[in-house]
Amino acid sequence: MGQDIKKVVLAYSGGLDTSIILKWLQETYDCEVVTFTADLGQGEELEPARKKAEMFGIKDIRIEDLREEFVRDFVFPMFRANTVYEGQYLLGTSIARPLISKRLVEIAQETGADAISHGATGKGNDQVRFELTANALDPSIKVIAPWREWDLRSRTALLSYAEKNQIPIAKDKRGEAPFSVDANLLHTSSEGMVLEDPGVPFPDYVPQRTVDPEKAPNEPEIITIGYEKGDPVSINGEKLSPAALLTRLNALGGKHGVGRLDLVENRFVGMKSRGLYETPGGTIMLVAHRGIESITLDRGEAHLKDELMPKYAELIYNGFWFSPEREMLQALIDKSQTYVTGEVTVKLYKGSATVIARTSPHSLYSMDLVTFEEGAVAYDHKDAEGFIRLNGLRLKTWAARNAKARG
Amino acid sequence: MGQDIKKVVLAYSGGLDTSIILKWLQETYDCEVVTFTADLGQGEELEPARKKAEMFGIKDIRIEDLREEFVRDFVFPMFRANTVYEGQYLLGTSIARPLISKRLVEIAQETGADAISHGATGKGNDQVRFELTANALDPSIKVIAPWREWDLRSRTALLSYAEKNQIPIAKDKRGEAPFSVDANLLHTSSEGMVLEDPGVPFPDYVPQRTVDPEKAPNEPEIITIGYEKGDPVSINGEKLSPAALLTRLNALGGKHGVGRLDLVENRFVGMKSRGLYETPGGTIMLVAHRGIESITLDRGEAHLKDELMPKYAELIYNGFWFSPEREMLQALIDKSQTYVTGEVTVKLYKGSATVIARTSPHSLYSMDLVTFEEGAVAYDHKDAEGFIRLNGLRLKTWAARNAKARG
Amino acid sequence: MGQDIKKVVLAYSGGLDTSIILKWLQETYDCEVVTFTADLGQGEELEPARKKAEMFGIKDIRIEDLREEFVRDFVFPMFRANTVYEGQYLLGTSIARPLISKRLVEIAQETGADAISHGATGKGNDQVRFELTANALDPSIKVIAPWREWDLRSRTALLSYAEKNQIPIAKDKRGEAPFSVDANLLHTSSEGMVLEDPGVPFPDYVPQRTVDPEKAPNEPEIITIGYEKGDPVSINGEKLSPAALLTRLNALGGKHGVGRLDLVENRFVGMKSRGLYETPGGTIMLVAHRGIESITLDRGEAHLKDELMPKYAELIYNGFWFSPEREMLQALIDKSQTYVTGEVTVKLYKGSATVIARTSPHSLYSMDLVTFEEGAVAYDHKDAEGFIRLNGLRLKTWAARNAKARG
Amino acid sequence: MGQDIKKVVLAYSGGLDTSIILKWLQETYDCEVVTFTADLGQGEELEPARKKAEMFGIKDIRIEDLREEFVRDFVFPMFRANTVYEGQYLLGTSIARPLISKRLVEIAQETGADAISHGATGKGNDQVRFELTANALDPSIKVIAPWREWDLRSRTALLSYAEKNQIPIAKDKRGEAPFSVDANLLHTSSEGMVLEDPGVPFPDYVPQRTVDPEKAPNEPEIITIGYEKGDPVSINGEKLSPAALLTRLNALGGKHGVGRLDLVENRFVGMKSRGLYETPGGTIMLVAHRGIESITLDRGEAHLKDELMPKYAELIYNGFWFSPEREMLQALIDKSQTYVTGEVTVKLYKGSATVIARTSPHSLYSMDLVTFEEGAVAYDHKDAEGFIRLNGLRLKTWAARNAKARG
Repeated sequence: MGQDIKKVVLAYSGGLDTSIILKWLQETYDCEVVTFTADLGQGEELEPARKKAEMFGIKDIRIEDLREEFVRDFVFPMFRANTVYEGQYLLGTSIARPLISKRLVEIAQETGADAISHGATGKGNDQVRFELTANALDPSIKVIAPWREWDLRSRTALLSYAEKNQIPIAKDKRGEAPFSVDANLLHTSSEGMVLEDPGVPFPDYVPQRTVDPEKAPNEPEIITIGYEKGDPVSINGEKLSPAALLTRLNALGGKHGVGRLDLVENRFVGMKSRGLYETPGGTIMLVAHRGIESITLDRGEAHLKDELMPKYAELIYNGFWFSPEREMLQALIDKSQTYVTGEVTVKLYKGSATVIARTSPHSLYSMDLVTFEEGAVAYDHKDAEGFIRLNGLRLKTWAARNAKARG
Repeated sequence: MGQDIKKVVLAYSGGLDTSIILKWLQETYDCEVVTFTADLGQGEELEPARKKAEMFGIKDIRIEDLREEFVRDFVFPMFRANTVYEGQYLLGTSIARPLISKRLVEIAQETGADAISHGATGKGNDQVRFELTANALDPSIKVIAPWREWDLRSRTALLSYAEKNQIPIAKDKRGEAPFSVDANLLHTSSEGMVLEDPGVPFPDYVPQRTVDPEKAPNEPEIITIGYEKGDPVSINGEKLSPAALLTRLNALGGKHGVGRLDLVENRFVGMKSRGLYETPGGTIMLVAHRGIESITLDRGEAHLKDELMPKYAELIYNGFWFSPEREMLQALIDKSQTYVTGEVTVKLYKGSATVIARTSPHSLYSMDLVTFEEGAVAYDHKDAEGFIRLNGLRLKTWAARNAKARG
Repeated sequence: MGQDIKKVVLAYSGGLDTSIILKWLQETYDCEVVTFTADLGQGEELEPARKKAEMFGIKDIRIEDLREEFVRDFVFPMFRANTVYEGQYLLGTSIARPLISKRLVEIAQETGADAISHGATGKGNDQVRFELTANALDPSIKVIAPWREWDLRSRTALLSYAEKNQIPIAKDKRGEAPFSVDANLLHTSSEGMVLEDPGVPFPDYVPQRTVDPEKAPNEPEIITIGYEKGDPVSINGEKLSPAALLTRLNALGGKHGVGRLDLVENRFVGMKSRGLYETPGGTIMLVAHRGIESITLDRGEAHLKDELMPKYAELIYNGFWFSPEREMLQALIDKSQTYVTGEVTVKLYKGSATVIARTSPHSLYSMDLVTFEEGAVAYDHKDAEGFIRLNGLRLKTWAARNAKARG
Repeated sequence: MGQDIKKVVLAYSGGLDTSIILKWLQETYDCEVVTFTADLGQGEELEPARKKAEMFGIKDIRIEDLREEFVRDFVFPMFRANTVYEGQYLLGTSIARPLISKRLVEIAQETGADAISHGATGKGNDQVRFELTANALDPSIKVIAPWREWDLRSRTALLSYAEKNQIPIAKDKRGEAPFSVDANLLHTSSEGMVLEDPGVPFPDYVPQRTVDPEKAPNEPEIITIGYEKGDPVSINGEKLSPAALLTRLNALGGKHGVGRLDLVENRFVGMKSRGLYETPGGTIMLVAHRGIESITLDRGEAHLKDELMPKYAELIYNGFWFSPEREMLQALIDKSQTYVTGEVTVKLYKGSATVIARTSPHSLYSMDLVTFEEGAVAYDHKDAEGFIRLNGLRLKTWAARNAKARG
């Protein structure tokens, strides 16, 4: 504080917390606030945010539909790498933050603002993701993180601040929520409170987006996803835009209870946390992408991608989407996707998404190659002998040395 | 051929193919054959193998139950690493070969044999695994791979050789099998023929060991697996030996349709192949182990393991279990498992195994650490600011340079 | 053999060995031979090869100067990665083979030849590099490796074959050479015979291209190398083509005894070998490139490159220059070189090449950034506290858990 | 501040800066101070520190010779990995900090102190190394970093504080030093001021420990270093303790100008810095260790170590010596060193240390293995064909697919 801020762009949802932040920014910095509200597919009406912002006297109110950009330029590139964090997490929250922060920075540049502000707390990963993105895109722009600055640390303090400032409080916000939720087109995450003890299963009322597998249809559903150069482009033969495709997969996955993950993860800020993630469409995309890659990627490509994936996932999780090393890895990953084209058939049933077939015009498994009966590529059983003997040569030498050394 | 072999130890199942090999070895090398038949949990009677071997005049017939050694010294160490090959395959076949080959070599050393022999074909990975193991354990022992040496390349040729030599042919072996099967306590794999086209789903009659998820019980089953230092030791509170535990998990998983995998994989010998793998107990162990690790491993440990896992999996898949680099990785992995102790609760339902709770006396997520309200480890929201600012410093410098360079 | 080969393109040096191969191909395959002789900077006259080829009745004789392509498209891309094999070897032989083999394949395609042939022995890495390149560029073209096919295994057999076929034998080729040499613009390697015992220093007469450091000038020489986007483009301000630049650096390095390496390395074919490598210009380029990168690469970029370099080096050493995974890594490496531009000052003296200064218009170390006195990027000592505290949080938790577990 | 600290253990050199810190701690925290002065081979008298501490009324003064522990338990384990940071830096400062901090923590535990304190500034890596070590060894112990807390930011402020408190100021400390120095048995580092511009060569007066190569002896010196299980144990046949051996190598290297490194590196705290490092003995150990490994390590071992070294180096540089992941890597590295035993001959001359010969009782390059004429391990030229064909199989398939895809 005490910094001379004239104009700040705030990531504004229209909810209670970011409304309190809006007011607090006006009071604390005596600055103009530009609100930015983005549709990333979180499933909320955005127009109420406009009305609320107007209530605070905001003149520059930005509301944008970023769903296509989100899926095309962030979600799809990430899925090209079969990205999972700590073996399981599909990074639904992590991948959305860089886009929001990028737009905050761009609006700040357009409007001549000196700072951006966000509503992420001081204990989580999101603050890191917002701020590293801003650092990497425009180092001259300041970031205000009210949760780290103010003294409104308790629910009571927040509510009393809201009342004092005549900020409307929805009835269901008066008490402490039993858990907190973040959502976008890729996933819904729930964490905190009733989810805190990793030794206790999550309560039935926590999931938002997927049916309980036990209540999912008794009949499996089979779908075919078309891929071009590593990205899904159609479902059951129907071409769809990136966001439309993911929306469709979410509906399909959600209906069949696909994509729930109950996880204890390691935060970048140094502690463990437990969350429930629902990523119905993303879970289908992960298995489908592995399916189409299994027939179109060479072993060398596939194994190199698998070896680098954990690092790539860690970069995204930690907030380094906009960093030179993530861009280097993306160049490597994208290079491999030229021929990742074809169709994958997936069965959805009671919580599972399973690849049952895959075809490609660019298959490395086309029948005439595999049977090796003719054509350029042939296989001679005798070749295996030399192959094994030379692979084993160093082992034999090693074994002979060890035997000698042991006496 | 033409090598002077006096005695050979043959991996002998008692089936048609290895019986033909037995005869062929006797004829071709004019040598004594020691048969070795191992119970690795493949679910077949072993005594018939003894009788058959006697029919061929074999004097030294070895039949051994290796199930405990298999699970304790091969399967469990591998699962400590959360090992999957190409993102999915649990390496059920790969991990069994080194043990069989190790026993072949040891018996050869005991009996003064010059060679060992196996029934793996010249097109697959198993020949490599058998032979590299032998190379690494005793470089002086020769390996005879009849499938690469003889000219019995067709089914017809084999059957006629059998008839000529009065080797009994079971009725169901007269025709070509619609697919081939390999099984042990960890998994059953099916491949070839009806499975060859990766664009066609596997027929219903292929799976051997798991019920179709659609026919699995309508009620989920919840089990608790106890872990000690990275290995499972109990189910629902009952202590079990390694093999007994895996057997129990196989029954549970099989009943609920858990652990089917329809995969196109990249063989070490350079081609792609498609298989159906059933690993019911292993699939449960994989998710359960990740579950107990999620609360007992530090982030640094977990991420290092994840980064090295693909290489470790590749080594096992390619046949390098007995190699210095696998042993180096094992030392690293085992070092991390000291406190991987506790209980994991898993729900089995219609093809899925899902962790729903985990507890540990050595948790890094014990409540008093997480809430950070007191004790040695505390968290100050303000710390995040410095953390982010120094993590972002290089990105700001990078961004400033780039902006300047672009003009 | 027995294959029906009509025309073969032979990598032909004009020397005794490849002349014998030429004759042997004509005799064995009764086929037309196209000779291909390339100047890669090995420092030999090429026209004598034409005359010799004519003596064998060759009609299609190809002689090409590949020096610029070699340095521009093979050497420079490799040096962008600071590539060393096994911590030390600059891959001078490895990087030349793919280019020669690529031209053999292209000429085969132009001339309708069915096969290519090379003079590499059956015990070394070069055969692998030649043949994998051909596989990756045109799988329909056969490769004939006479050293693996014929029975001319001894020096005597070779000489007697030459005499029988009236192939001229230079006087100095009548005896066995005390070591064998391979050379190109990047390096000269010597191995075999007098070099075989790694416990014995190499004799003084082995080095070809560098003066003994003890006999190098007593005065150091200081040079400045200009870089653009990761590649050297000038020496002491004079712009030079890739091959001209490397030629100049070779002269400078050679004069000062720079770039000798006496190494025991691990061959891809499974054995260890000992060689003396002289890479005068390359050694200077390695330190100079690290020097310019040290001020122009971000830490994330530099560390990612360093982590992947050993794999990249192994691919090149093993012959996988033309492979999808090498191309993926190259995309990653090249992505990092955009701003690797500037000047590096290097001191050459008695066997050493040492960076003493580096400047860049795109430095990440420009004074106003480093002193942090003003501008966009500032540093607050207080930030370090939060940075350390959050980095240490997991360690504190780990330590507290361990203490508790130990009782 | 304001924390209730009763007793603090201070890393005390006896110099001006840590004397000011001593006084400042007494004043600010009104606490008892225990001074700890360690001999890590920095080449300074330690007894004067005792007298100075007594002047401040310190009752518990600890002076310890840690040289053997330093070399045996920190330097040698690190050199087993051939560790270099950013391709060049031998981590001389980084490896000393964990030991000092470990002793501070142990003394705090023995004496019932609540805190430790160090004299590292807020802009460097050393503060991180001191504090992460303390976190990992005893999370209950606080760390006081005066340079981040006080307002004595300028030289003038420091000197005036010293005068006010009657702290003696040596004449040569009245002005600003032209650069700052850190030293221990492994290295001397110089940085700051006259070294700050990376475009300007370091002045002749900066190096402390190595002669200018141009002034080094005109005659090379040849030494033989004996290794046992990865660690050096003798020089020219004379057995030496770890610290004695490194001391001897430092003398030898320093005399011949070996081990100077002028480097721009990336600090963990986010900025680049330039330093001059002198590591005479360490530079010899690095080449010698690679030399003995080259004949005693299998390729699989050597390559795995090389791939992991950059991560291992980064951990040490960043201060994570005491972390579970460093210990995991150490387990892997140490596993590989069982047979790294033998002798390496090194030539020292005018700034260079060069391996010229290596022998080992456990060589994987023993003559009878290499020539492959007899014994268990044999080589057949024909084997190479199958080896290459199967390695090339996937490349042929890839090439055929690509050709087809391109039309």
